[in-house]
Amino acid sequence: MNLHAIYHRPKSNYCYAYDKNTVHIRIRSAKGELTKVSLIYGDKYNWENTKTELDMNYICCDNLFDYYMLSINPHNNRLSYYFIVEKDFERYYYTEWGFFKSVEQKDLYLHFFNYPYINEVDIHSVPEWVKDAIFYQIFPERFFNGDKSNDPENITKWGSLPESHSFYGGDLKGIINKLDYLEELGINALYLTPIFHASTNHKYDTTDYMKIDPHFGDLDTVKELVSKCHKKGIRIILDAVFNHCGYYFEPFQDVLQKGEESIYYNWFHIKNTPIKTNPPNYHSFGFTPQMPKLNTENPEVMKYLLNVAAYWLKEVDIDGWRLDVANEVDHSFWREFRKVVKSIKKDAYIIGEIWHDSLPWLMGDQFDSIMNYPVTRACFEYFAYEKIDSKEFKEFINSTIIRNTTQVNEVMFNLLDSHDTSRFITRCGGDFRKLILAMIFQLTYIGVPCIYYGTEIGIKGGDDPDCRRTMEWDEKKWNKDLLKLYRSMIYLRKNHESLRRGSFKWINGISDIIGYIRKTEEEEIIILINNNDEDRKVNLNTGVKKIANLLDKNEIYSSDNNSSNIELTVNQRDFKIFITKY
Amino acid sequence: MNLHAIYHRPKSNYCYAYDKNTVHIRIRSAKGELTKVSLIYGDKYNWENTKTELDMNYICCDNLFDYYMLSINPHNNRLSYYFIVEKDFERYYYTEWGFFKSVEQKDLYLHFFNYPYINEVDIHSVPEWVKDAIFYQIFPERFFNGDKSNDPENITKWGSLPESHSFYGGDLKGIINKLDYLEELGINALYLTPIFHASTNHKYDTTDYMKIDPHFGDLDTVKELVSKCHKKGIRIILDAVFNHCGYYFEPFQDVLQKGEESIYYNWFHIKNTPIKTNPPNYHSFGFTPQMPKLNTENPEVMKYLLNVAAYWLKEVDIDGWRLDVANEVDHSFWREFRKVVKSIKKDAYIIGEIWHDSLPWLMGDQFDSIMNYPVTRACFEYFAYEKIDSKEFKEFINSTIIRNTTQVNEVMFNLLDSHDTSRFITRCGGDFRKLILAMIFQLTYIGVPCIYYGTEIGIKGGDDPDCRRTMEWDEKKWNKDLLKLYRSMIYLRKNHESLRRGSFKWINGISDIIGYIRKTEEEEIIILINNNDEDRKVNLNTGVKKIANLLDKNEIYSSDNNSSNIELTVNQRDFKIFITKY
Repeated sequence: MNLHAIYHRPKSNYCYAYDKNTVHIRIRSAKGELTKVSLIYGDKYNWENTKTELDMNYICCDNLFDYYMLSINPHNNRLSYYFIVEKDFERYYYTEWGFFKSVEQKDLYLHFFNYPYINEVDIHSVPEWVKDAIFYQIFPERFFNGDKSNDPENITKWGSLPESHSFYGGDLKGIINKLDYLEELGINALYLTPIFHASTNHKYDTTDYMKIDPHFGDLDTVKELVSKCHKKGIRIILDAVFNHCGYYFEPFQDVLQKGEESIYYNWFHIKNTPIKTNPPNYHSFGFTPQMPKLNTENPEVMKYLLNVAAYWLKEVDIDGWRLDVANEVDHSFWREFRKVVKSIKKDAYIIGEIWHDSLPWLMGDQFDSIMNYPVTRACFEYFAYEKIDSKEFKEFINSTIIRNTTQVNEVMFNLLDSHDTSRFITRCGGDFRKLILAMIFQLTYIGVPCIYYGTEIGIKGGDDPDCRRTMEWDEKKWNKDLLKLYRSMIYLRKNHESLRRGSFKWINGISDIIGYIRKTEEEEIIILINNNDEDRKVNLNTGVKKIANLLDKNEIYSSDNNSSNIELTVNQRDFKIFITKY
Repeated sequence: MNLHAIYHRPKSNYCYAYDKNTVHIRIRSAKGELTKVSLIYGDKYNWENTKTELDMNYICCDNLFDYYMLSINPHNNRLSYYFIVEKDFERYYYTEWGFFKSVEQKDLYLHFFNYPYINEVDIHSVPEWVKDAIFYQIFPERFFNGDKSNDPENITKWGSLPESHSFYGGDLKGIINKLDYLEELGINALYLTPIFHASTNHKYDTTDYMKIDPHFGDLDTVKELVSKCHKKGIRIILDAVFNHCGYYFEPFQDVLQKGEESIYYNWFHIKNTPIKTNPPNYHSFGFTPQMPKLNTENPEVMKYLLNVAAYWLKEVDIDGWRLDVANEVDHSFWREFRKVVKSIKKDAYIIGEIWHDSLPWLMGDQFDSIMNYPVTRACFEYFAYEKIDSKEFKEFINSTIIRNTTQVNEVMFNLLDSHDTSRFITRCGGDFRKLILAMIFQLTYIGVPCIYYGTEIGIKGGDDPDCRRTMEWDEKKWNKDLLKLYRSMIYLRKNHESLRRGSFKWINGISDIIGYIRKTEEEEIIILINNNDEDRKVNLNTGVKKIANLLDKNEIYSSDNNSSNIELTVNQRDFKIFITKY
């Protein structure tokens, strides 16, 4: 038995409270290795009477490991446990202290893994509405120019290719004017990149956190936007850039002028004086002098920024915050941030921008979710670049699932592209069939899909600034088939709870294409995606005898005899979405 | 290569900031497997110019794994990295995404492990004084009766064996009266089990958190105790029992009387009404009706308990808190607790009572340390029971080292016995030679030794209540040799920085005994412990040519020729402590 491969650690993604009655236990072992994994659990203060033994369920694998899981309802909120791992006739107790052929009962208490007590306040509770959300990301400067009176000087012609410093005049009024478009698309949540006063087009260099950028509108405009969104059932979250400010942020200007005499001197990380900007002798985002890093450990800065977070929640009634460069700000700050935000709006959604394994921020005390770039990456490696095959894609996705708790996976912010990546269609070399398959995956996968403005009509673009082209409003230039499909898929997701909240399970034994089932007690939806240049025959053997294509109810398949084997073909670069009850 | 065995995860015991300039990186692999491990690190915003490659240092192994470590000074507070693991000619990149024969440079940013930014507030900063402390644990009811006027009724005769409900009259005045004894012993820190008003002899069932138990003294007595301790350079920490209160705690009594009408109803976890006590229909410690669990999520309870914590720090100037049943209280409470405590006394010491892997409490936001029962267990398995051999002991100890960060290991509360375990000498079947060897280990090991009252004079005792016998003050009944050795060892530890703050390294190649080196830049001390019934010849080959016995400076050994090989004998059940410069 490869004992080295077996891993478990309490109070991590391997053991966490899902809700006040439930603890999830996972364990890892070498792929294809174990024949049985059992969990023995109970209340350590009443072990003999509460001791229960259950088989762990195999849930998935990645390229190296198998993963098993169980959902447990502890006795009296307390959970002590160990595992028995078996490979044929080889059998070990796996405890906190490792692997043992036997453990003396009297020593068990020293061996237990523990989730000592389920305290509700420690449980990661995520906003329910997010599980039903379909997000749309807008880069306001490029979406629509709704108010020409607030345009910057010398704006570039709408539709021409952007350069780093281009301005086009997009604004909040523009979003308000286009809410019908968004409503028709079907999305029910918006994420706006920053809208506060800043000098650049992207506004990640805040000049004034308390003021809407004058080129975007004012307090009334944002209130109108949020209120009109809410009337249409659209939630809206804003971008909090708290890692750094902009060069023209008043406190920083004060420090530039007064040096150590400034009362704001400790708002930043100044290495020495006199202050220089090229290269900067203060910490900044990357090495950008225009983005001085804020000292979020300074109680004054913390108070200031938490007040900013609170103000926009209270004053404008936004529904959450996306946090820029979230992993470079201290955990202590984010813990306070969560408390403040959730105390004002219990179901506000908090998304951190972290491109990597983010467990240290996702255990309940900080963020609800992250920009799920790991899944983005899996999608471009598989659908766009075809660098990995369907098996590798599934294992890649599985590894992202296992990294986090179930409640986090349920509200993961899944995106194919954003203002920080080249457009997915451009990664696909313009092949819309590939984009469509990735989109089908995104819109039928667990978590929250977010569509980057324009992706739905086929806007292209390479790396920044090219991925920030102006939205196309000339319908003649739209990829209308794509848009129609986006609308259909959004409609499907909104109308089928299983696609939003159902369990997720890969279908095995259908090599070279990907297939999975989303399932609730009421319904079951089967998704098949063929990312090959050849048609693929599929033998579906999921226990179901009749299925209907959700996008074309005339397409019905039945098993041909008493078996539940259904034969069908998924065409090259095509997909099928079936429902089993109709 | 056993890739399954290789493990690393940022922001855990495998990667943490040690101080504001230093990040520690550890990696795990199968034992005896790798021939080389390299770390490639840099600033992700300036990778090409900051990229640095270093060999990782092998540090230790446990029964399954080898561990490697490096201490890194990141550029600009930011650290991105990956590993190259090699076994002879087999070579893999090990990144956040797993193992790769090669990684394209342009994709590296997606692969990095990250410690995104060293924010000082997140760094686990531990109190410096603790590194120099030698603790002594007192169970006040059993130490000395210094004030007969405050005795409980019907006290049991001092010296008779205790039963669960025995009272003997020990009190704070008793500790004050015996401070000279403690000073002579040499300890410089005290840990008292609870001293607040409670009905039992152990006082873990608090009636009034704001009042000293009347059988122990009053506010003046504890102030006198702390002030006299401080004058002698002795720090003092108290026991915070915040998981549960006692049956007679006023708010609980109010709830018992008024049920749901009580304003304190939500101070507890009442399952239903009417309230019953046998069995209790409220959550309690274990199933003890006399110890109702406090609802530390309730802001009123939190405020109340934090005020308790603050009050004794401010009013009496105590030096820290030991936290009872710490793992059953919510993390959120402990985070606030740490803030309150450290804001009043920056270098207060916070020790959680957790008998298990405690990383979720030991990353800097909650405790400084735990009661290190895992090491206690290693000591009784090896020294007392001889169930494990020296190799297994070393691996056991190594696994406890690797579980935690270096700063936590430096202030770990290392104990051989306590009020919650049978006495170590009793586990040794009364063989003082075994206790002595364990004590030598304890007093020369990393972390903070704590001596349980009376262990130093040979008091015996099985499980609770027998381990809570009265302290023996009749010197004729003392094991004076043992006491003398305790005094010598405490003196040695206090006078040799290397024993308190030096690095710790096992000496290899001396089978069947344990040997290790504690080393600072100034000095190097070698400890050899022979836990066998036979004398053992040792060939010391540590690069040193001359050593002297620290407890007997006449015992000097030199290498016999130009080699640095020193031959010597460690007698059965005996030890040697050498210094290399004298």
